[in-house]
Amino acid sequence: MVSVGIVGGTGYTGVELVRILLRHPNVQIKALTSRTEAGMRVDAMFPSLRGLTDLAFSNMDQELLSSCDVVFFATPHGVAMKQARALLDGGVKIIDLAADFRLQNTVAFEHWYGMPHACPDLLAESVYGLPEVNREKIKQARIIGNPGCYPTTVQLGLKPLLDHSVNNGNGLVDFSTLIVDAKSGVSGAGRKAETSLLFSEAADNFKAYGVKGHRHHPEIVEGLNAIAGQPAPQFDNLIFVPHLVPMIRGMFTTMYVKLSEAGKQADLQALYEAAYASEAFVDVMPAGSLPETRSVRGANQLRIALYRPNNGDTLVILVVQDNLVKGAAGQAVQNMNLMFDFAETTGLEVVPLLP
Amino acid sequence: MVSVGIVGGTGYTGVELVRILLRHPNVQIKALTSRTEAGMRVDAMFPSLRGLTDLAFSNMDQELLSSCDVVFFATPHGVAMKQARALLDGGVKIIDLAADFRLQNTVAFEHWYGMPHACPDLLAESVYGLPEVNREKIKQARIIGNPGCYPTTVQLGLKPLLDHSVNNGNGLVDFSTLIVDAKSGVSGAGRKAETSLLFSEAADNFKAYGVKGHRHHPEIVEGLNAIAGQPAPQFDNLIFVPHLVPMIRGMFTTMYVKLSEAGKQADLQALYEAAYASEAFVDVMPAGSLPETRSVRGANQLRIALYRPNNGDTLVILVVQDNLVKGAAGQAVQNMNLMFDFAETTGLEVVPLLP
Amino acid sequence: MVSVGIVGGTGYTGVELVRILLRHPNVQIKALTSRTEAGMRVDAMFPSLRGLTDLAFSNMDQELLSSCDVVFFATPHGVAMKQARALLDGGVKIIDLAADFRLQNTVAFEHWYGMPHACPDLLAESVYGLPEVNREKIKQARIIGNPGCYPTTVQLGLKPLLDHSVNNGNGLVDFSTLIVDAKSGVSGAGRKAETSLLFSEAADNFKAYGVKGHRHHPEIVEGLNAIAGQPAPQFDNLIFVPHLVPMIRGMFTTMYVKLSEAGKQADLQALYEAAYASEAFVDVMPAGSLPETRSVRGANQLRIALYRPNNGDTLVILVVQDNLVKGAAGQAVQNMNLMFDFAETTGLEVVPLLP
Amino acid sequence: MVSVGIVGGTGYTGVELVRILLRHPNVQIKALTSRTEAGMRVDAMFPSLRGLTDLAFSNMDQELLSSCDVVFFATPHGVAMKQARALLDGGVKIIDLAADFRLQNTVAFEHWYGMPHACPDLLAESVYGLPEVNREKIKQARIIGNPGCYPTTVQLGLKPLLDHSVNNGNGLVDFSTLIVDAKSGVSGAGRKAETSLLFSEAADNFKAYGVKGHRHHPEIVEGLNAIAGQPAPQFDNLIFVPHLVPMIRGMFTTMYVKLSEAGKQADLQALYEAAYASEAFVDVMPAGSLPETRSVRGANQLRIALYRPNNGDTLVILVVQDNLVKGAAGQAVQNMNLMFDFAETTGLEVVPLLP
Repeated sequence: MVSVGIVGGTGYTGVELVRILLRHPNVQIKALTSRTEAGMRVDAMFPSLRGLTDLAFSNMDQELLSSCDVVFFATPHGVAMKQARALLDGGVKIIDLAADFRLQNTVAFEHWYGMPHACPDLLAESVYGLPEVNREKIKQARIIGNPGCYPTTVQLGLKPLLDHSVNNGNGLVDFSTLIVDAKSGVSGAGRKAETSLLFSEAADNFKAYGVKGHRHHPEIVEGLNAIAGQPAPQFDNLIFVPHLVPMIRGMFTTMYVKLSEAGKQADLQALYEAAYASEAFVDVMPAGSLPETRSVRGANQLRIALYRPNNGDTLVILVVQDNLVKGAAGQAVQNMNLMFDFAETTGLEVVPLLP
Repeated sequence: MVSVGIVGGTGYTGVELVRILLRHPNVQIKALTSRTEAGMRVDAMFPSLRGLTDLAFSNMDQELLSSCDVVFFATPHGVAMKQARALLDGGVKIIDLAADFRLQNTVAFEHWYGMPHACPDLLAESVYGLPEVNREKIKQARIIGNPGCYPTTVQLGLKPLLDHSVNNGNGLVDFSTLIVDAKSGVSGAGRKAETSLLFSEAADNFKAYGVKGHRHHPEIVEGLNAIAGQPAPQFDNLIFVPHLVPMIRGMFTTMYVKLSEAGKQADLQALYEAAYASEAFVDVMPAGSLPETRSVRGANQLRIALYRPNNGDTLVILVVQDNLVKGAAGQAVQNMNLMFDFAETTGLEVVPLLP
Repeated sequence: MVSVGIVGGTGYTGVELVRILLRHPNVQIKALTSRTEAGMRVDAMFPSLRGLTDLAFSNMDQELLSSCDVVFFATPHGVAMKQARALLDGGVKIIDLAADFRLQNTVAFEHWYGMPHACPDLLAESVYGLPEVNREKIKQARIIGNPGCYPTTVQLGLKPLLDHSVNNGNGLVDFSTLIVDAKSGVSGAGRKAETSLLFSEAADNFKAYGVKGHRHHPEIVEGLNAIAGQPAPQFDNLIFVPHLVPMIRGMFTTMYVKLSEAGKQADLQALYEAAYASEAFVDVMPAGSLPETRSVRGANQLRIALYRPNNGDTLVILVVQDNLVKGAAGQAVQNMNLMFDFAETTGLEVVPLLP
Repeated sequence: MVSVGIVGGTGYTGVELVRILLRHPNVQIKALTSRTEAGMRVDAMFPSLRGLTDLAFSNMDQELLSSCDVVFFATPHGVAMKQARALLDGGVKIIDLAADFRLQNTVAFEHWYGMPHACPDLLAESVYGLPEVNREKIKQARIIGNPGCYPTTVQLGLKPLLDHSVNNGNGLVDFSTLIVDAKSGVSGAGRKAETSLLFSEAADNFKAYGVKGHRHHPEIVEGLNAIAGQPAPQFDNLIFVPHLVPMIRGMFTTMYVKLSEAGKQADLQALYEAAYASEAFVDVMPAGSLPETRSVRGANQLRIALYRPNNGDTLVILVVQDNLVKGAAGQAVQNMNLMFDFAETTGLEVVPLLP
């Protein structure tokens, strides 16, 4: 039985980790911390958990956390990197759901997150926790930077195209024109008391945000470069526009990619199906399908559909996931399964909730 | 042209007053104050107003407010009562959308609002701004306590029954059993950055709140006693349970009233229709109708329907209104119209927005 | 391995049965029928099931169904009663999620459902599938009438009071005044293409419906009489007003009950906690709790909270459930578990989805 | 007083016309037809209109319609073109809110709408009712094809760029790459009883639709060519992907345009502001603004914001409107105002409903 600590259990990714891990057969949650709610039972804050656990929030207790096998950080950015070394020294593995271990470029990190990185050496050691890309490295890792929700959809949505270029030399795609029009449910913004996230502000409304610049942009670029195997200046031109959808969970990413002549000749549907044939959590839908976010509600699943309007030179890639599961807590548990040599799907077999 | 000041223009009742008054032909908004946003244009905060006004938020400027003919307080409880005397002394009329001038019982006020009343003499002078009950007094008033949203539905929903008792001696109803099961859209809680009002908390969810006690309870009781013409101890037994509905605007109040033998014989539908025949803003729907909140969305309208299941001794009274309009800002403008001798419907002719 | 047939798999209770049963370790879905979609894969209609099953809808195939151990009817009213005899003769057990086997009173059935009952003898044999009331009978039953969603909340919300009267002679409650103000998410109306259920009609709106009379009223009355152990004319006075909430899943029932003197003296919180102490799927929340529907989203759980405003003579009982789970498909599986001697919670351990 | 007929008053654009025209000072609604609801009062179907009108639905009565000055068709495609000649012969003007008079290309019409055009000569005479483009022609027109909702946003969002090319010879934009990622509220699909539009299907969900081809695609292309002054083959490459948002009203269109060198040098914000300076219903928001759909809820207003990420070669154009107002009924009334020489804003001064 692996013993787990969760730092920051009162946010949406924290309670989502609890939801998933309570049904994980190989895991016991040993510690659940909260700066503000120490002493409170978790089911008093989240009555959905009544009858399922006696856990209570505790203060950040270094000793308790050090007795865990793995600690998840479901905290604001900047927390995990300050505690990482002590935990690692005690033999504890770390999975950070915030951004501390996502960007290898510390200049970019400081620019976008407004703080210097506290442990560049550990950052260098850490592994970007996108299992479909880094599976073998994750198995060996001590520190995982769990990917952001938007970057997960973009990278998995483009990976087969990038891999093909790497493997075949000839590119299917001209990546100098790459449009990412992304839409997220409101829970992606977290459980923060901000006016703009109020029901009366966000309901029956649709808007763009972060058009001037969004923290996930550099993560996407770094991730695509990593998959491509070498820095490709073209990804810097990537246009990323996120939007806010009046729904709780769900992320929908629409990507517009320019096909090369080779790309126009290729059977891209077959390419994608082959690329993900053995992946449990990536579903390439049949040609002509229209994915919808509710088809993955509550589940660690990402679905992709491809369109080529009028057989022209633009490929439209549609990607859906639950931003809190494959986009956050579910992917974190997937990483944990790899790190502890459990079957990758363990504890992640929940059927999506529809309707 | 009446010049108007609005204190507290950044909340939902404040912006709703602006929405209505911008189309009022006899009014000019002269001042719009905000403690936190002074200097900001109102259409920068509420882009729905772009092109309609050049107003900017100002600091609380006593001189400016004193130059108005009437000042609306769309503030937290306790603000209006502190500024009332100076304004009145300057000849300014006051309409308070908070609770400072709703409860004549200062003990109850202090109990429910946690502060002593700052000006009991002005409170005694003030008029409870429910036009369908107090029209003549409102015309003469210098200070209006604008009713709470729930109390508006309950009082107007029961008034014909109470009036009948007053006028006829024999009661149609045994008010010792009176159940008020009320449901409100989320905007009723205001534009406050509270976790429980977040989209991700309130959407796709339904709950009761304030079951142990709600501030509108004493206001309802005082209002019913006033309509009845004398304190009736039976109203103290009134059960009031409010619920939160995942919608922005709208209030639905379901009341269960015990009929006396006389009540069972009476034609209550006809009684209600007669009682409100000349009221512009109260609509008694035809027998068998099922009111819905969207039928009054954005409009200063309250609709009532009556049912007597199985011709038994329980009368079910269904009442809908838009909590921000007839339940707040619209009713305040209705009061202003009376105070300044405008036609009561001036500026309030908006057609409800459906769908 | 129990082999299961589901008749009518395209509605919400049908797909909910599939969602649950796919994760039930002792069950295999052998047949899934649809009049209109025969031949279609179930995951083509419900992409949430992609990767989880190869099931396709089939025509109603008597032979196939007869080879099952149990058949669920997730059909319109009137279907199950016509097919029941043939299946029973073949040794197949039946769980009907429609109303054919809910009302023992065939006159009431014909009145409310507009058709004569096709098999009164089988109806007489059938058991009302409310496990917390009829557990032992369910274990022996061949035919289950799975309760309606509203009736489940009312019966379980009142059962401890009724049982106490039965056991102690003295009643805690005067049931001649019993108000049931109920609120349901839209999925309770099923997956029917009706204008009133459109998003643009039901969203951002709240309304009452069925105030003149609702099919669940006679079921509630019959169920309460059954628990009380004898017909009690007082239940005929029960007032039941259902409302429609703009949310997908969830049911919230607010009940107002008149306490007797004995009831005012009793520790009702303790009574309820004791009554349900050993029930896995009924949760009596701590005094002062406010249940919300999302706390049971997707789970076979019903939660109850009690209030006695001002220590008066009215008890307010708040009940929440997911109308599609404890109010339909989950309860059906709970019944199946009892009928086949599985642990009652098998396959029903899903953690509610919050947020 | 202009007398108005509305054919097809039970759909969303029909009731929206009624909502607007009831407050139009120069207009009287004389006829409101419905095939299915003849005889019913319109306020029985839409209680939001109670107290505002005594109108009832009538059968399609040629004589009655011929006595009107103008007839709006708020009908399915194919109705208006069959009745147009008789009305025109009687001197009645026509505004069709369906597609019969939108596409001058009858081959495209037949392809996308599945029926031959019934009156190509009248089509040739008709004017495309986009006032900001065709104002003078509209004033003289007998028949208006009221634009589709998506095409309105695309054409008004691109018009300043196209006009500049026409006027200056040098293009600011390379239109061979033009991505239109559009999002619509559910009311855009009309008041049709279809399963996919049910609340329980569309709520808490986001999806793309019509990716293979959408009827508004040829309308957009034809409209852009018309503005450009000559057929430009590049518009055929336009990629248009519509999505469905879980909100009632509102349309958000995100466009990605490739700037030429001249375009990168130009002050596009100033260009847009100048282009629409005198337009009452097109609002170019200040640089850095983020439009949201609720800022135009219920109002005949379209707002535009411009972004150029990283000062690169992609211009992002964000456009919002209420699909039922500027995208349908409001624009139709704007056209009527022009045709009857009323001030263009008459009856269209409603303030958007926020929150």
